[in-house]
Amino acid sequence: RQGGEMTDAPVPLAGAQPRGEAAPVAGGGGGAASPPPPAARRGRTSPLLPTLAVSESDGPPVRTRGRLSSNDWTRGADIGAIFGLDVGGSLAKLVFFERTAPPGIVRPPSASSLAKPTMERARSLEVLNTPACSKALRSFYDFMASEEITKYLGSVVHEDHLAFYSQDLGGMIHFVHFATSDMDRVLQLIRSHKLAHAVLRLGCTGGGSFKYQKEIEEQLGVQVVAVDEMETLVRGIEFVVSTVAGECYTYKLEGDEDAEEDKERDPLVEDGQGAEDEPTSAKKVSERWTAKVQRPAVALQDIFPYLLVSIGSGVSIVRVDGFNSYQRVSGSSIGGGTFFGLARLITGCSSYDELLKLAQCGDATKCDMLVGDIYGRTYSKIGLASDVVASSFGRLMSMPTEDIEQLTKPEDRARALLMMITNNIGQVAYLNAVQHNTSRIYFIGNFLRRNKISCHRLSYAIDYWSSSQMEARFLEHEGYFGALGAWILSASQEEDLPLPLGQSRATPPPSSPNGPHAP
Amino acid sequence: RQGGEMTDAPVPLAGAQPRGEAAPVAGGGGGAASPPPPAARRGRTSPLLPTLAVSESDGPPVRTRGRLSSNDWTRGADIGAIFGLDVGGSLAKLVFFERTAPPGIVRPPSASSLAKPTMERARSLEVLNTPACSKALRSFYDFMASEEITKYLGSVVHEDHLAFYSQDLGGMIHFVHFATSDMDRVLQLIRSHKLAHAVLRLGCTGGGSFKYQKEIEEQLGVQVVAVDEMETLVRGIEFVVSTVAGECYTYKLEGDEDAEEDKERDPLVEDGQGAEDEPTSAKKVSERWTAKVQRPAVALQDIFPYLLVSIGSGVSIVRVDGFNSYQRVSGSSIGGGTFFGLARLITGCSSYDELLKLAQCGDATKCDMLVGDIYGRTYSKIGLASDVVASSFGRLMSMPTEDIEQLTKPEDRARALLMMITNNIGQVAYLNAVQHNTSRIYFIGNFLRRNKISCHRLSYAIDYWSSSQMEARFLEHEGYFGALGAWILSASQEEDLPLPLGQSRATPPPSSPNGPHAP
Repeated sequence: RQGGEMTDAPVPLAGAQPRGEAAPVAGGGGGAASPPPPAARRGRTSPLLPTLAVSESDGPPVRTRGRLSSNDWTRGADIGAIFGLDVGGSLAKLVFFERTAPPGIVRPPSASSLAKPTMERARSLEVLNTPACSKALRSFYDFMASEEITKYLGSVVHEDHLAFYSQDLGGMIHFVHFATSDMDRVLQLIRSHKLAHAVLRLGCTGGGSFKYQKEIEEQLGVQVVAVDEMETLVRGIEFVVSTVAGECYTYKLEGDEDAEEDKERDPLVEDGQGAEDEPTSAKKVSERWTAKVQRPAVALQDIFPYLLVSIGSGVSIVRVDGFNSYQRVSGSSIGGGTFFGLARLITGCSSYDELLKLAQCGDATKCDMLVGDIYGRTYSKIGLASDVVASSFGRLMSMPTEDIEQLTKPEDRARALLMMITNNIGQVAYLNAVQHNTSRIYFIGNFLRRNKISCHRLSYAIDYWSSSQMEARFLEHEGYFGALGAWILSASQEEDLPLPLGQSRATPPPSSPNGPHAP
Repeated sequence: RQGGEMTDAPVPLAGAQPRGEAAPVAGGGGGAASPPPPAARRGRTSPLLPTLAVSESDGPPVRTRGRLSSNDWTRGADIGAIFGLDVGGSLAKLVFFERTAPPGIVRPPSASSLAKPTMERARSLEVLNTPACSKALRSFYDFMASEEITKYLGSVVHEDHLAFYSQDLGGMIHFVHFATSDMDRVLQLIRSHKLAHAVLRLGCTGGGSFKYQKEIEEQLGVQVVAVDEMETLVRGIEFVVSTVAGECYTYKLEGDEDAEEDKERDPLVEDGQGAEDEPTSAKKVSERWTAKVQRPAVALQDIFPYLLVSIGSGVSIVRVDGFNSYQRVSGSSIGGGTFFGLARLITGCSSYDELLKLAQCGDATKCDMLVGDIYGRTYSKIGLASDVVASSFGRLMSMPTEDIEQLTKPEDRARALLMMITNNIGQVAYLNAVQHNTSRIYFIGNFLRRNKISCHRLSYAIDYWSSSQMEARFLEHEGYFGALGAWILSASQEEDLPLPLGQSRATPPPSSPNGPHAP
C-alpha cells in the first residue's frame, strides 16, 4: 500500500455550486492538510459542520504532493454522482450512468411514481451539466470505451448486454465488474489515469467498501459514502424492476411454459403446474425444468413480503417487508466461494467461467451416492426415487484410491459440487421462506451469472419442496443490485459528513442471534 | 454373486417348538425345493398360512446341495432372535444379544414399564434355552470372540465400550460394525463358517437390507425381516434411553457445566447459560463449548416431540411425536459420505479415522473466507464477528494455483470441510426444528462417532441460533439405533410371512413432497 507516497492523487478542490438540502451529494473529500471543504459546498449551515474539520487521525490522510493548479480543467467538478460501487468477497461491481438521448426504442417506464431515492439521484445528476463535469465525464467514458482497462486487468468484464436506459434519469446505466483481488491494481490504474480527479464522493457498499475505504480515500482522494448493504439490494431491485421490462423471470417445466407466458395474474395464486408431474423420477422432471418464463412487473407495493437470497461468495438471506423494512434473517457459508474454492482443489480448474463450462458437461452421479445405490431401488415409502442424491460425493467413499481419478472426471466433480451447493442453498432458502411466511424467493448474486444449471435447479427445487406454493425468481441484473443501490442511495445520505475512518454510518447494536448465518 | 452355486448354505430345518402368537419370530426360511415350513413352527394355524408355500419365483431360491443331515446339531435351532442388522450407505451395524448373569454392577433399570416391543423380544428370547440353540449360540459367540473375523475383514470394529446389560432382557447387548462395501465378503465368511445354519429369520433395516436382501436370503438361507427404518430409530432410542443411565448428553460452555450437572429439571425451561456470553468473537466462545453434560433420563412419555437428525452417509430428519407417530420431514445430501468422499479428493486421506485425526489438528481459517477477510473487521450492524466464516473454502478462490498446496495443508482442508458440513447440518436441523416446533434435537448416526468437533459445534450452533431455546442432544450409542430397533421390532412383526423377494412390508403410498430431502 502506497498511501503515504502517492504523487498523483489530487486534492479535491472547492467550488461546487451550492445546492438545496434534497441534494446532499457533495461531501468533504479533502484531508486535514488540504483546505477544509467550504460550508458553501454543503448547501446548508448545519450545526454539525464543525466536525468537517477532521483531525489528522480521523480524516483522510495528509497529501503533500500532486496538487493541481486552480485552473485545472476538473476544477469544481464532481462526477461522483454517476457511480455506484459494490466490493464483495470475490467480485467488485461498478455501475455508472451516462446521460444520453433516449435510444430508438425506449423500454416502457413503470406505472409507479418515481421513488424518492431515485428522485434524489435524478436531481443530483443535474450537477453534471457544467462544462467542467462534461469534460471529466468525457474523459472517463473515453477511458472505459478504450481497451486500456481490459489490457491492464484481465478480470474486468463489461456487461454491455445489461446496460439499460432509464427514462426517469435520462440516460444509460452501465455495468462492469472485476475481481476484488485486483482492487489494488484498479486503484493504481485510476490514479495513473487521473480518473478520480473530478470525483469527490463515491457511493459504496459491500464488505470490501469497509476493507478498502482507507485505500480509496488515501490513494484517490475520494470520500467513501458507505451505504447499508441490505438497503442497497432492496433499493436496487426496486429501481430495476420498476424500470426494466422483462427483468424478472423463473423457470418452469418444459412444455408447461406456453400456458404461463401470457398470464397477467400472480402465478402463485392459481398455478397448478408441477402438481400433475409427480416426481416419480426426480431426474427426468428436474432436467426438464428449463423453460424460462418472464414474470410481469408487479406494482411495487405488491412485491412485499419477499425473501431475498443473495448468493455471492457466501449467502445472505434477507426478509423484505417494505422499502425500509428488511432484516437479514439467515445465511450460509456454502456459496459461490465454496464452489470456486473447492472446485479448484478437485478439478484443477482455475478459471470460474471454465469451471461452469466443465460443470455443464459433467455427470454428478459418478460422484454422488444415490438412493438407488443404497436401497438397490426407489425408497418408495418416503417417496425417494432411486435417482435422488442420498449423499453428495458419497460414492467416493468406497472407491479404491487408485481408481478415483479414473472413475470420476473433473467435469463430474464440478457438476456434483455445483448441484450439492445449489440444492443446499435452495433448501436453506426454502426453510427460511417457510419460517418467514414468504411465497416469493428472489435469488440474486453473481453465483447465478451464466449459471443456468443452478437457476433451473433452484426453480425446480423450490417448486418441488413447496408443492408449487412458492416460486424462485431471478433478475437479469442479478449481481448488480448492491452497486445500483449504492449509486441511488448515496444521493440521499442526508447526514453526508465525513466519518472517522473505519466507522460506517450504519452501526446500530448487533441484531438478534438468529440473524447471522454462522454461529 | 454365487447364489446358484453355493454348497455351504444349509436348508433351515423344521422342528422349532410351537410358540404362542405373541412370539412370531419363526419364519419360512426354506426355498421352494426344500420342505415347506411346517405350520407347527409358526405357532398358529392362520388362514394366511397357504402363502407360506411360496412359489419358486416368489420365495428364496432353490438350494440343491449342502443339505444337512437331520441329526445335525443345529436341528430346529433359530438364534435369529439375538440379531439386529442395519445396512447403511457406508456402514453395516450389527447388534447381538448374549444371555448372561447380571454383571457386578447393574445399571438401574428405567422406571417405565417394559415397552410392548421389548416385551415381545424378551418373550422371543425364551426359545434360546434349547440345547440346540445353546450350541449354536456358543459357536457364534466363540467365533466373535476369536480374531478370525478381524483378520479377514479389516473394516470390522467391535465396540466393546458400548455393550450394556439389559435387566429386562436378561443379558448383554453387543455392538459391531463393518463397511457396507465388505458385505459380500461378510456373507462369504458367514457361509464358510456355517454361522447362519441356525438362523432362520433376521431383523434388518437400512437401505442395504433391501439391496442385499436377495444375497442374504440366497446365500445364507436366512429370511430377511425388513423393519421400517424410521421406526427402528425411534424404538432403538426408546430402548436405550430407558435402559442405559447416562446415555443422553449435550455440550455446554466450559465453566458453565458445573451448575448444570445436578439439575433434575428440564434444562430447556430455565437455562440461561449462553445468554450472558454474547458471541462477540464467535471463535472464542464456540471453542469453549466443550463441557460434556449428561441429561437425566426423562420419562418416556416426556421425550416427545423431538427432532431426530440421523447423520450417516446422508442426513435424514424425522419429527417424532410418539412411538407410533413420526415422519421424515427433511434431509440433506451433505452428510458423512460427503465429508469422507470429498476429503479423499482434497486431503488424499483414505482412512476415515485418520481423516478425523487430521481434522483435529487443522486450521479451517486457512481455507475459509472470514467476515474479517471481506470487511476488514466485524460487520457489527448484523452481528457478524470478524472471525465468522463468510464463505467456506472462499480463500482458495484467489490463491495462485501454485501456492494452494503450500498455503493450505491437508489438515486445514479436512477441518474446513468438517466445519462446513457440521454447520450446515446444524442449520438445516435448526430450521426444521423451528418449522416443526420442537425444542430438542437428537443428533445420531455414525458421522458423530469419535467426532467431538462436530458434537461441540452442533451444541454451540443450536444454542446460538435458538438463543438457548433449543438443545442439541447426543446419545452414546449414536450409530446403532437402527440395528437395535431392527432387533427389537422384528419380534413383533405380526404378519411374519415371507414376502416375495424385493418387496418390503412397509410400502404405503409416497409421502408428501415435503418429506424427501432432495427434489
